[in-house]
Amino acid sequence: MNTRRDFLQKLTLSAVSLPFLSFRNIVKTGDSSPGKLPAAAGADTGERSYDGPMLRVAIMGLGGYGTRVAEAMRSCTRAKLVGVISGTPSKIVNWRSKYGIPEKNCYNYQNFDAIKDNPDIDAVYVITPNGLHHDQVIRVARAGKHVICEKPMALNAKQGQEMVDACRKAGVKLLVGYRMHFEPKTLEIIRQRNAGDFGKIKFFQGLSGFIIGDPTQWRLNKELAGGGSMMDIGIYSINGSRYMVGEDPVWVTAQETKTDRVKFKEGVDETIQFQLGFPGGAVASCLSTYSMNNLDSFFLDGDQGFAELKPATGYGPIEGRTSKGELNQPHVTHQTVQMDRMSGILLAGEQPPIPVDGVEAVKDLKIIDAIYLAAATGKKVALAL
Amino acid sequence: MNTRRDFLQKLTLSAVSLPFLSFRNIVKTGDSSPGKLPAAAGADTGERSYDGPMLRVAIMGLGGYGTRVAEAMRSCTRAKLVGVISGTPSKIVNWRSKYGIPEKNCYNYQNFDAIKDNPDIDAVYVITPNGLHHDQVIRVARAGKHVICEKPMALNAKQGQEMVDACRKAGVKLLVGYRMHFEPKTLEIIRQRNAGDFGKIKFFQGLSGFIIGDPTQWRLNKELAGGGSMMDIGIYSINGSRYMVGEDPVWVTAQETKTDRVKFKEGVDETIQFQLGFPGGAVASCLSTYSMNNLDSFFLDGDQGFAELKPATGYGPIEGRTSKGELNQPHVTHQTVQMDRMSGILLAGEQPPIPVDGVEAVKDLKIIDAIYLAAATGKKVALAL
Repeated sequence: MNTRRDFLQKLTLSAVSLPFLSFRNIVKTGDSSPGKLPAAAGADTGERSYDGPMLRVAIMGLGGYGTRVAEAMRSCTRAKLVGVISGTPSKIVNWRSKYGIPEKNCYNYQNFDAIKDNPDIDAVYVITPNGLHHDQVIRVARAGKHVICEKPMALNAKQGQEMVDACRKAGVKLLVGYRMHFEPKTLEIIRQRNAGDFGKIKFFQGLSGFIIGDPTQWRLNKELAGGGSMMDIGIYSINGSRYMVGEDPVWVTAQETKTDRVKFKEGVDETIQFQLGFPGGAVASCLSTYSMNNLDSFFLDGDQGFAELKPATGYGPIEGRTSKGELNQPHVTHQTVQMDRMSGILLAGEQPPIPVDGVEAVKDLKIIDAIYLAAATGKKVALAL
Repeated sequence: MNTRRDFLQKLTLSAVSLPFLSFRNIVKTGDSSPGKLPAAAGADTGERSYDGPMLRVAIMGLGGYGTRVAEAMRSCTRAKLVGVISGTPSKIVNWRSKYGIPEKNCYNYQNFDAIKDNPDIDAVYVITPNGLHHDQVIRVARAGKHVICEKPMALNAKQGQEMVDACRKAGVKLLVGYRMHFEPKTLEIIRQRNAGDFGKIKFFQGLSGFIIGDPTQWRLNKELAGGGSMMDIGIYSINGSRYMVGEDPVWVTAQETKTDRVKFKEGVDETIQFQLGFPGGAVASCLSTYSMNNLDSFFLDGDQGFAELKPATGYGPIEGRTSKGELNQPHVTHQTVQMDRMSGILLAGEQPPIPVDGVEAVKDLKIIDAIYLAAATGKKVALAL
């Protein structure tokens, strides 16, 4: 049995555990003068010196993925981990020593509203169980800080919209951890599609799944997870269908299958197949599951060409090809690039290649709502994103 | 735009056009004595001398696929093309000279019932448009000859059952052109699955499609084809789901998408996605289409391993791998093996590795009926095969 972390980690251990290869160290040992932006360098990779504003981030939720983000941020050039919010004092002690975090930037879940009086933190990255995002994001927004929220952003579209509204009202920006929106091979496929290389897009297929381990984890708890595989791994195929096809779907159908009612309790989906229809006539056929061997592949078919990614969304090197040939863009640690690019978005008004804001996330949540409704009723559900 | 023949032919031209490489010629030029069965030779490939009964076949319908079967039969060791049934006299003239067919074994659609008085024909292979199969098969049965019918065997399960009943009543056997049921890589996957190498089967995916050409062909005529892509290419995923999973499905859902209502008229399906549920908890996600680039792949996933075939059903070499490694079984011309094996079934009571009889075909037709019903109503349709 694999755990989610095993699955998503398996190809990326070297990137995380070999800091001497990090971009930060490339910058440090390179010959570019501090404060000077080399003309040929791009913001995409972080491979440059940088003298613009630095995004000072506090991470809320010091679990497995929080740790991954923290490690990846060691290589960031435009963002820096400066604070933590955790309910576990021993974790805070550990992170303080590991990442050099000052005590004044450490909070717990009772007192973190006081972050509003902390001028040394620009943004909070919420990496807690899905069911906590809504209230936590709104509290961060009310504290006047930008919010980055892990996906899925909330349990449903209503919650999501309330979060978007709260951030607007508070005058802060809300971004969501769509790390694939900065991934080079993914972006190259989108470039080729936009250039017409695949002709008219007809079909997308997304398979997202793994065999989940520990039955006591929060991801199998309806209240905390908001569902099952769909709220964890299925969202990759949902979101992927949109950025691969390049349109928002207009209908969805779905079928749920449950083989283990002990592990997957009421409201916790084990396996859902879902189908999407797009305005241009393309269709998508997707699978979300917690009970099948590592499934992580995208396939896009047009009447003049195709693209495929496998793995499509894992943390390690993405691999893929199109009808024009193999994709050879270099692997980058997704979370490093994400945080550098989000620094540009939050502090310098830069635009992402594909939206990563709360409005984007609400679209995915509307689709999730519709998938659950379609699976429960057996009916085709219309979507208006 | 590709035609169906282009698609299915593209990998196999050499096998058909290079008769000097055929098994018959291997036998002819080999050193095995006629009438002696080499101990190490297998019936699967035809690579042996043979002195058992020879199946004497008449082909009904001298179109593209009929021609392919006739060419493949040049390499058969247990079956021989001896007759034709056609409505086109010039085709009969051509075939007579090409295949050395005596005049007394030639019939047209008016007089072929007289085949009952022809002791030199054992079986008729019906390779006409789907909509004609029902009446033609029943006429052949009444003439007392075994019938091989191209797939889909009929337009619906009711027709199919009538054909099965008529053949039983007439005391003749009814087989269907399920050539993949003898394909070595396919059979190796089934062997590994049965040996437990993939663990519990969880998921099957079948993608079957191509962009159909000439809009005036019979395959786009509801009356002759009985539908659209589903009746032509979709049946590969239907039938494949059963032999790959190793169970018969118990429910089906389906979604139809039509982007071109001129080419794909009422009742002629362009694209149908369908999902199947199996008693053991496995699910299948399949696509049948006449408007997407060459899609021909199967993927089977178990909790301990996987198998994939791509191409999975084309005429040329099938390629595939499992979690145990690449599949290296040699390519055989499917129709050659099929006809040799069907000779053994019809004349010597041999058993096929996977059923190829009319009862098997009725199961596929019941699924097709259910897919069309599910697509039309949007409802999950229960199956009892």
